[in-house]
Amino acid sequence: MSDGSWLTLPADTGFGPANLPFGVFSWDSSAARRVGVAIGGQVLDLTSLAAEQNLRVADLFAAGTLDRFLAAGRPVWREIRARLTDWLTSPTGRPVIEPHLLPRNDVRLHLPFTVGDYVDFYSSRHHAENAGRIFRPNLPPLPKNWLHLPVGYHGRSGTVVVSGTDIVRPRGQRLAPGEQTPSYGPTLRLDMEVEVGFVVGTPSRHGIPVPLADFAEHVFGVFLVNDWSARDIQMWESQPLGPFLGKSFATSISPWVVPLDALEQARVAPPPHDPEPMPYLAESDEPWGLDLALEARLNGHPVSRPPFASMYWTPAQQLAQLTANGASVRTGDFYASGTVSGPEPDQRGSFLELSWGGRDPLTLPDGSQRTFLADDDEVTITASAPGPDGGRIDFGEVTGRIRPALGTSPG
Amino acid sequence: MSDGSWLTLPADTGFGPANLPFGVFSWDSSAARRVGVAIGGQVLDLTSLAAEQNLRVADLFAAGTLDRFLAAGRPVWREIRARLTDWLTSPTGRPVIEPHLLPRNDVRLHLPFTVGDYVDFYSSRHHAENAGRIFRPNLPPLPKNWLHLPVGYHGRSGTVVVSGTDIVRPRGQRLAPGEQTPSYGPTLRLDMEVEVGFVVGTPSRHGIPVPLADFAEHVFGVFLVNDWSARDIQMWESQPLGPFLGKSFATSISPWVVPLDALEQARVAPPPHDPEPMPYLAESDEPWGLDLALEARLNGHPVSRPPFASMYWTPAQQLAQLTANGASVRTGDFYASGTVSGPEPDQRGSFLELSWGGRDPLTLPDGSQRTFLADDDEVTITASAPGPDGGRIDFGEVTGRIRPALGTSPG
Repeated sequence: MSDGSWLTLPADTGFGPANLPFGVFSWDSSAARRVGVAIGGQVLDLTSLAAEQNLRVADLFAAGTLDRFLAAGRPVWREIRARLTDWLTSPTGRPVIEPHLLPRNDVRLHLPFTVGDYVDFYSSRHHAENAGRIFRPNLPPLPKNWLHLPVGYHGRSGTVVVSGTDIVRPRGQRLAPGEQTPSYGPTLRLDMEVEVGFVVGTPSRHGIPVPLADFAEHVFGVFLVNDWSARDIQMWESQPLGPFLGKSFATSISPWVVPLDALEQARVAPPPHDPEPMPYLAESDEPWGLDLALEARLNGHPVSRPPFASMYWTPAQQLAQLTANGASVRTGDFYASGTVSGPEPDQRGSFLELSWGGRDPLTLPDGSQRTFLADDDEVTITASAPGPDGGRIDFGEVTGRIRPALGTSPG
Repeated sequence: MSDGSWLTLPADTGFGPANLPFGVFSWDSSAARRVGVAIGGQVLDLTSLAAEQNLRVADLFAAGTLDRFLAAGRPVWREIRARLTDWLTSPTGRPVIEPHLLPRNDVRLHLPFTVGDYVDFYSSRHHAENAGRIFRPNLPPLPKNWLHLPVGYHGRSGTVVVSGTDIVRPRGQRLAPGEQTPSYGPTLRLDMEVEVGFVVGTPSRHGIPVPLADFAEHVFGVFLVNDWSARDIQMWESQPLGPFLGKSFATSISPWVVPLDALEQARVAPPPHDPEPMPYLAESDEPWGLDLALEARLNGHPVSRPPFASMYWTPAQQLAQLTANGASVRTGDFYASGTVSGPEPDQRGSFLELSWGGRDPLTLPDGSQRTFLADDDEVTITASAPGPDGGRIDFGEVTGRIRPALGTSPG
């Protein structure tokens, strides 16, 4: 589908003119970083295009990060999107755009924005119930608060890395099964978490909550997250203050940020809420559930297909919760959905759930088995959403390969 | 004590030439920010001094934040400290320094550095045992992991504010005593937490733990922290992922960063560890326990005097823990000690403990009573440490006044 574009796009591209995700790229490791927009198999160099066209907003793209563009706010996001759509779909745009297109395979992609605070939620009911049954078998699967608010916590922003970055197996204190005293060493339960991330563009004022209805005024776009987790480290350290080193060693994100404006056709109502959420968490008549089809592959083999539409709490509810106490959000702050798991066994977004705490190994096509991740394993998460006119919006991928733990002791 | 300085300093100053804490100031709200060093009742304008003297390092102080100076690393920190000490203690320094001194009362102080990640530990055994007894009366006071590692979690860096910033009472979901369903409203249990913070200057490499012995290569200095807490919000939200909105509304820090190099006389051994820490957490023969005398005042009245020397885990152990899984630290990342509480009832660093969960109100000199903080209450935390030759190193203060909650609903 070409969406009326003069561009020759792959027939089934999820990167048509209805998508226009933003990212940061360079030609090689030494070249300066530039802001780009993915279109078909190509990347449009917005830094050079905006400078050449002498756009009023050219300085937003001069620095080789999305930071300034994100901070510019929704009217600017929409103005630039409209301009690009125009150029890409009318023949007069061709001479403007064409000199600034590069093959996507030839560029290197970078972290798209400077990460401020990173919050991770826990908003899939299926995941929370599974994790509860596995981690806390003697308690009700959902904590008492879970149906009343989106539970979340702060993660480490300094170790957020872009897709393609190797992940070194972390070491740490963990309690081996059946042991009463901890030992120190490489995690034996390295896991993925299939998640979706939301980046803030327009900041809010400290002290003033962001009403749920203002979600799209603040959040620019959406990307994929793999919240790598070391389950044995996490289990040992988490009482009473929650996950810390079991998560903080690395979090991978996909390089292309899909604008909320590209996801109008993907909006759906979340599952019914019981009890009724408090007013500050009540979704509007145009809710922000999103129909994203996620897929996780281990070494190329699909292991899970979690449906994002099954999430109990929406990203708009999450932003309202995050700021309900007056905490501010800044440009570059992002938050992630929490592991996305659907109701079916092959829709579980972590190996913790897929192997039921290590009890039921998965068998891969090569005959090997996995409970958790092995060294040299590669995890890739992809997603797509419905676009206009029966088309598709693709998110690209977030991928990472496990490297062996360091051989020497840190002390 | 003048430490041999040509300066006329107050007789008992804790801001003598042995201290030299760094901060950021301006003359009024419109003036540019400048880097300064506190000396007696004055502030030395390092931005103008370094420019005038054409120092090789002048650009480190040009930007009006400590960021570049922090990133420059320990040899530069020491070089500049030695140069300032020279100028301040020999008569030839007088014409160099004097034109750049301003009365401290005339300047406005700002956040001294750009905050990266903020981690909060939980390393006072007395506090952890008190909190355990109050929050989890049916469980052993210390979680199983507590004596094996410094427990910590990530806080919100975007809501770290400088001393003097008003604190708006946060609202949120909380479970009223005896209730089974939550209600929404201003916190009824607003608390202080008396803490000490440590800021990273030299970054570490992602994937490589920082050995405990390298603590002083990475951490530049020390300041005071009030980790404001809303206990009822925290209690309701914290399972299973730890504190979130009960903490994220605001964290106050003192404006002057005392260099580790000023604290040699304050170094002490921490309390004996049993069990023996794992090798990566084993303190050296020159341990980093610190003999800081803290004081918290409510509306000018002392309510607690926690001894920092009683902390079970030292800041060097905390940094080793924070990076044990390969998580990197960046310039501007900081971590806090956790609430400092000593063994005595008047050494408890939170109202949670001072009022024993609200059971035992404190009576103030004006006859009023407190379990937790009331609107218009002002909390001030100060600290000092032993300096050379019987002198004292002062930390200044972190102060904040409680403002009433917003009157309107956020939804």
